[in-house]
Formats: sequence, structure tokens, C-alpha cells
Amino acid sequence: MQLHGHSLIAGKLAPISSKTFNAFNPADGAKLEPAFLEGTHADADHAMRHAEDAFEIYRRIGDVARAEFLDAIAEEIMALGEELLQRANLETGLPFDRLTMERGRTCGQLKAFAALIREGSWVDARIDTALPDRQPFPRPDLRRMLVPLGPVVVLGASNFPLAFSVAGGDTASALAAGCTVVVKAHPAHPGTSELTAAAIYRAIEKCKLPHGVFSLIHGTGADAALALVRHPLAKALGFTGSLRAGRALFDAAAARQEPIPVFAEMGSLNPVFLLPGALRERSEQIAAGLKNSFTMGVGQMCTKPGLVFALGGPDFDSFAQKFRTQLQSAACGTMLHRGICENFHAGIERVRSLKGVVVLGESDADADAAKTQAEPVAFVTDVENFLLHRELQEEVFGPYTLLVTARSTAELEAAARSLAGQLTGTLHGTPEDLASFRSLAEILERKAGRVVFNAFPTGVEVCPSMQHGGPYPATTDSRSTSVGTAAIQRWVRPVCLQGFPQSALPPELLDDNPRKIMRIVNGALTR
Amino acid sequence: MQLHGHSLIAGKLAPISSKTFNAFNPADGAKLEPAFLEGTHADADHAMRHAEDAFEIYRRIGDVARAEFLDAIAEEIMALGEELLQRANLETGLPFDRLTMERGRTCGQLKAFAALIREGSWVDARIDTALPDRQPFPRPDLRRMLVPLGPVVVLGASNFPLAFSVAGGDTASALAAGCTVVVKAHPAHPGTSELTAAAIYRAIEKCKLPHGVFSLIHGTGADAALALVRHPLAKALGFTGSLRAGRALFDAAAARQEPIPVFAEMGSLNPVFLLPGALRERSEQIAAGLKNSFTMGVGQMCTKPGLVFALGGPDFDSFAQKFRTQLQSAACGTMLHRGICENFHAGIERVRSLKGVVVLGESDADADAAKTQAEPVAFVTDVENFLLHRELQEEVFGPYTLLVTARSTAELEAAARSLAGQLTGTLHGTPEDLASFRSLAEILERKAGRVVFNAFPTGVEVCPSMQHGGPYPATTDSRSTSVGTAAIQRWVRPVCLQGFPQSALPPELLDDNPRKIMRIVNGALTR
Repeated sequence: MQLHGHSLIAGKLAPISSKTFNAFNPADGAKLEPAFLEGTHADADHAMRHAEDAFEIYRRIGDVARAEFLDAIAEEIMALGEELLQRANLETGLPFDRLTMERGRTCGQLKAFAALIREGSWVDARIDTALPDRQPFPRPDLRRMLVPLGPVVVLGASNFPLAFSVAGGDTASALAAGCTVVVKAHPAHPGTSELTAAAIYRAIEKCKLPHGVFSLIHGTGADAALALVRHPLAKALGFTGSLRAGRALFDAAAARQEPIPVFAEMGSLNPVFLLPGALRERSEQIAAGLKNSFTMGVGQMCTKPGLVFALGGPDFDSFAQKFRTQLQSAACGTMLHRGICENFHAGIERVRSLKGVVVLGESDADADAAKTQAEPVAFVTDVENFLLHRELQEEVFGPYTLLVTARSTAELEAAARSLAGQLTGTLHGTPEDLASFRSLAEILERKAGRVVFNAFPTGVEVCPSMQHGGPYPATTDSRSTSVGTAAIQRWVRPVCLQGFPQSALPPELLDDNPRKIMRIVNGALTR
Repeated sequence: MQLHGHSLIAGKLAPISSKTFNAFNPADGAKLEPAFLEGTHADADHAMRHAEDAFEIYRRIGDVARAEFLDAIAEEIMALGEELLQRANLETGLPFDRLTMERGRTCGQLKAFAALIREGSWVDARIDTALPDRQPFPRPDLRRMLVPLGPVVVLGASNFPLAFSVAGGDTASALAAGCTVVVKAHPAHPGTSELTAAAIYRAIEKCKLPHGVFSLIHGTGADAALALVRHPLAKALGFTGSLRAGRALFDAAAARQEPIPVFAEMGSLNPVFLLPGALRERSEQIAAGLKNSFTMGVGQMCTKPGLVFALGGPDFDSFAQKFRTQLQSAACGTMLHRGICENFHAGIERVRSLKGVVVLGESDADADAAKTQAEPVAFVTDVENFLLHRELQEEVFGPYTLLVTARSTAELEAAARSLAGQLTGTLHGTPEDLASFRSLAEILERKAGRVVFNAFPTGVEVCPSMQHGGPYPATTDSRSTSVGTAAIQRWVRPVCLQGFPQSALPPELLDDNPRKIMRIVNGALTR
């Protein structure tokens, strides 16, 4: 497929604009063709208007038709074949096996949401039937279910060019909910985005849906994203990226005449606590696991463990030695793009300059700047020093982690209490550790969306019980997840219909429950 | 019970402050004793710190213990007896029968939340069990449930001194969720608030809970409220009141270093559409119903119908004549306080000054200013003029409504489309009307949280299927309700526990489901 480089507004190529940009291959610095046209304010406006018009139709087609659409998108993504993986590899430097897996996850997500809405109970239907003779007042017939918010905006992430991008989790969950979607593509992988958008349009045509259900806007700066988030027709925003960008979007959304919800996943240190029993019994295994976890995907994971706490002492020293050895053999890796690589190195230098923070170990290999590479590195400090330097709580995106030793359980807890909101918090320990460090676990539960025991936080399962989200600044809305089927709840609001005849009710709220969904009827859960 | 006039910080009287204020009896303008001490920033800070400390205990006591606490609050409120009603009557001018009903609703809410959490399924528990042999990666054991956000702030409303105030819906739902609560009392009914707080403390003692679970701060200006919403320990805010105040609180919360959710219910015009068949067949009944609805509680209801649309013509004229007659016999009523009464009259004058808006009818009685009275009044205009004057979409709180005639269905729909977000939207029609005006119903569903057919929006049932909320500016978060058991969802966020042994899991997430709650286990809903 020949890439055209245009934004796609309801299936049509956006007009030529004055500015263009190119993607680059981070593995060799080569400029990639074609040039992509910067989206304009007019493009954003047209896309939102089409999304609004299409919403009036799309919200009415029903869950079953929407499920077919999601399945069709997954099929069309697979039908793109190797071309998609090749372009994604060129634009991101991510290896083929990882991209193949990510494509599987992307299609798996689409199918998971299709299954969720086909089953149908997600609408949280509630019915309280009329009690005309109740005293002192009769009760009217009341029926409530979740309905889609309207057209929503999704911003593609750099680190998952498929699973958190054009047809990623936010798009899949929003389309499942019945929202129409305008995606602002991440400028580091515009070709991958264009290919994915083409797959979505093929699914739209296959399912005979209005093209305005989906649009794709390209752009390098904040301009196109801000135009979308400020657009009066936009009803919510999904975003994965930096704290700075996420906060700017949140602020723009909050400053609107009609504020809209922003689901921004922004950054997390994913603290890991190594408890004494675990260090004693499994230090070799933990050292290997930690190395794998913080270098996975060249450390460009939202759930990369960037902080590791433990009580100091001989067991820690022995663990640190093993971890240092592991680290020596860790490979350098090509980062997603030059900007991320520069930020990584700046972050490392910032840490290196802090008093009392020293390098614990690093890879024996040398990073090749021409290949946009990063070299895995770990630092070490103590809790006292950690608490002195608030900068150590800034995320360094890439293969970096910081080990922090405590002199006492109280210090460990103080460190945990000092943490801002996180996507994850992890404990490694024996069952006895877990009993003795109960209050530490309780602190983590207040800090994080997911608390992990005896595993590493990277590797986020897509399933109903996943929570990928957490208190600020991990996200702007801790009540929400960006991974797993519960993500559909981002894009909906409840509507109560009072006194409507059966002929005017949606199937989910009919007396005879034709969809056989779980509902709360007169206070009791029932199918 | 002798009122002391202090804010109550974790059960203790707040220190003397330099400023005081008094409540007034709106029915005769008399100043009511005692003077109440203005809450200070220090009071707010102390209350939040106690709320944080108490949260660490309260969040762990379990749903069953929390249910007992809620029931105990309801009992203690009833035990206040006539004294509560008498003070509320003095401070608000609301009649005893209304206050008795409101007390019933307040206690009913507390008991409804107690029943909800006793049953337990509200935590939306989800379990995906480990698949250690899955390829290419094993699946870990993942278990997710809703947990309380932390200490929250509730601002009492003026128009429901019991049901939306100190122990009202926000407090009841937040306590049910496991949050601790700091209430900023509405300054128009501080004595009622102090009495209710005393009931809550008796329940706290009866249930042996930490006193910091609840605090009450008095204050007349925005100062105490802003100190609370800006406090770093506050994790969410519930509010019912004006758009101006609600937006100021929302903006303050969004500007925090850590933004917090704000559930502000702010104002609604609650548009009513009278469709042709209904006007033809039931104009007498609708005229009487409309009069009752817009004058109920002296028009001081969030769901008061403030806009009534219909096609112009002989049927409308005949209806208007009947409505005018109804209106003549409508009684004047004492409003909640002088400020509200002044705003009402200013609002009426603003409407009266607009070209093309004329008085349709009013009460034959004259409002007595010494009794803080308002006189029911209805205006009429046409859609063309309505669309010209955006001011007509500003809420006039009190017994005022505006009838708007359309020349065509298209004009009716244009008027509906022009509306901002609403708590409710109402249609009166025959089944045939409903079929012919389907797109009007669809517009209302996008504008409102509750769509009512053939009834009036006032009278909000407390039940699982109620939705009392709606798109901005009706509320700041359309995904939430302030009435009904679903309100508990405001105060919680999901946490996923990964790989934890059974011994460290809460009962809701144990394999054998000791609480017998509905859960999603490996994708299927089951008890």
C-alpha cells in the first residue's frame, strides 16, 4: 500500500496543508518517506463535526452490530500482514517479535471488547418498576443504563504503536461504548497510523457504518491535540504520554466552558519493595527478574520498575552484587525516537549529578548514538538521601532504575508514604514478610492502581480484573483503567428513562430482557 | 439540646474564632441564636488531618460494620425528634410536613446505602485466576475491586437542609464507600447542621469508630470551602448549589497540584416538551401538574421545570388559559433565605426586561417581603425569541417558569438542540406523539441525565435506577449521580491485587466468596 501522508477526515484525505513532517528510523537515523501533512485546526474541526454526525447513527446501532465492527477491525489489521509490522519496525525500532505480539494484543483487545458488548451486561442496567399504590407517593417506572458520551478524542502513544495507538485500547473501548473517535496520531509513527486507519475504514465499509465514526489527524506539536481537546463537540479525551503533555491537556479540558473528562496516563515509577525473606531466599531470581523487567522494551514501558527499595545489610549487598552482574550482560537497545533517547540521557545525567546517588552497575556494552541506543544503568542511594531529592521521583523513561536502601522498616514506610500516585506497586516477600509488612502493603494500596506480589509490574494482562491506572500523577483519573474491559466505563454516562412505554425502550431495559443481561431489578441482581 | 455554635473537628469543639454569623428565620426575618463561629483555615486543616488518620482505620472495618454505622446515624437522627424539625423550620422556612418527609428520605438514604454495602456486590469484584501454563506467557492471578478514595469534602446545600446536607446523600454514599467526610455546613441552617452532626457523633460512639471519620466546619463565605477543596489530603468533593460556586470549586480542584474529582450539581432548567396529542387530550391535567411542579418547595428544587416548549396554536392557547387560571390560585411561599429571594426577584426582572417575553400569568396573592416570600409567575415567548436571548437559559431559582411556543417540529428540535446540559428532560405525549417525536426524545437523551415521559421531573426517587446528574452545566461530571445507590461510585477507585495469597486478600476477593457477592470470575458473572 502506498502511503499518502494525509490526515483522514471521515475516510477522505484532508486537504494539502503548508507544513509537513517525516518519521525517522531510530535504528539508523534515516528519514522515512512519505512526508506527512500537519493537521490543521480546520482538519480538527471537520473531523469533530463528522464524528458528531456519525455519533447520532452509531450510538443507535446496538451492541451486537458494534461487536461485529470491532471484530472486523481486528480482521482488517491482521489482513495488513507484514506491511504493518515492517512499517512499525522502521518507525519505532521495536523488533518484529515484539510487534507481532503487540499486534496480537491489539486484536485481542478489540475482540475482548466485542465479546464484552455482545454479552451486554456492561451497561449496568437497573430497573425499578412502578408502584402506583405506594404511600405517600407512587413510585414511577425508572430504568437506567449506560450510554455513550459522544465523540471522543484519542491521542496515540509513542511506546505502543499498535496497542495504545490508532486502534489501541482507548479507541477499542470508546468504539465499544458507542462513541465515535478522532485519533491524533503520534508523530513518531505516522505510517503505522495511516495503515491502521486504512484497516479501520475497511471495517467501516464492511459494516456499512458512517465514515465519520473514525478520523485520523497527523501533527507534531501540541497544536492539533489542543484544537481537538478544546473543540466544543469533544466529550472526553484518552491519552498516554508524559506528565507535562498530559497535564497540559487536562488543564485545557478543565478550562473549557464545558469541562470534559481526561483520561491521561502519564508516568509512574512503579516502586518495588524487596522484603527480607525474599532477598534471603530468592535474590538470584529477583536480580534476573528485575533486570528483565526494567530493560524490557528498552525501559520504555509505563510499568517499568524505576525504584527498588530494600532494607540495607548483607542480604541486600549480596543481591546488589548479583544484580550488578546481571546488568553487565544487559543489551543496549534502540529507543523509539531521538527525543526520547535524549531525554533518557538527560535524566541519567540529572541523577548522576545528585550527591549520594552512585552508579550501582551498568551494561558492559556501549550505546551507539547513531542507532539511538540506550545503555541500561542502575543507581543506588539510601532512603534519607532519596527523601532529600524530590527529583528522584521524576520518571526517567528508559532502561534506568534506582535502588534505595533503608535502615529500618520505618524508613521503608516513610519512603513509601513519600511517593506520589503510581500505576503499580510491588512487593517481593515470603508469606511471613507479607504478614510483617502489612502496613507497607496498605500504603501501596493507597498509592497504586495495581499491587503486585512476587512478580514484576511489566506485562499488563488484558482482562476484566486488570487495573492500569492509579492516583495522580500516574493518571488524571484514578477511577479509570486504560487496559482491560473495564476501560469501557471511561466513555459512558448513565441515563434514566422514567415512565416510558415498552415500545420506546432499548432492548437492555425491556421487561422480558431479550438480551439476557445481568440487571438490577427492584434491587436484586438478576438475568 | 443547647446549640454551641462551634465547628466540630473529629468530635471536639473548634477553638473560638474572631468572626461569627447567625442564621435568620426567613418567615419573619428574626435573627436566630446562637451565633456560629466562622471556620478557619486551621479548622479545615485539622479536620482533614483527622479525616486522614481515621481513614486508615475506617477503610478497613468492612462493609458490614459500615452498614451498622449508617443505620446508627439514621436512628440517631430520628432520636433528635421534633427538635431537629423545629430548628430546620426556623432556619429554612420549610413547612413541617415537608421536613418530616425530608427526614424520612435522609434516613431512607442512609439505610439504602447500608443495605447496598451489606449485600456487597457494589465493589464490582473481578477475578482472573492464574494460568501458569498459558503460552507464550503465563497469566498471573489478578483480583480487582473498588476501594475508597480517601477523606472527602461535602458541602451542604441550602434547599435540602437534611437530605442534601450534613447527613445527606453525599455524606451517606461517601461513608458507605469507606471514605471519611468533612462537611462544610450551609450557613443558612447551621443549627440544623450542628444537630445532625451530634447525631453522627452519637453513631460514631455507638459503633466505636474514630471521631475523625466525620467533621463539620461552619462558614459563610467561599473561604472555608476553598480551604477544604485545596487541602492536599482531600480526595474528592461533593457539592449542590449554584453554577458560579460549583464552577469556582471545580476550577480550584482542577488547579491543584493533584487534581481531584468534583461532583457539583449546579443548576438545570429541566425542559418540558408538551407534544400535540397530550395538549389535546390532557391539557387540564398537565396545567395542574405543571403548576404543582414548578411551585413545589417554592420552586427551590433542582428539578423544577423552568422551560416548557410546545407547538403554538389553539390547543396551546387553550392549555395556556387553563395554566393561567391554575396559577392565579397558586400560593406565595417563604423562600429559604433572603439572598435566594433577592436573586429570584432579580431574575424575574431580568426576564421581564427582555423584548418579546411577556407575563403569561401569576398568582393573585401578593408576596410579603417581610416573610421572604416569592410569588409564582410564568412568562411566555416563542422559540425564535428564545434562541435570540441566551439569558433565558439561565436558571431562575424559585417559582418561575417560561413557556415557549414553536411554529414547527423543526423549531422544537432546534430549541432542544440549543439547550445546555440538564438534570432532566420531560416529554408529555400520547404513544403516537412519542413515535412521531422520536428525534426530540433522542436529543433530550443527549442533554439530560433523566428523561421523563408523562410526568413531572420534581420528586426524585431514591433507588438503584435513579440518575440525578447530567451533562455540564447541570453537573461537573455527567458520569455520576447524587441520588440513588449508584452515588457510591463517586467515592471509589479500582485496585487490582496481583499474585496475593488467600491469607492476604479481602473477603470480597477470596476464592470461596464468603460474602456471596456477584463477581466477574474468569469473565463470567457469578456468585
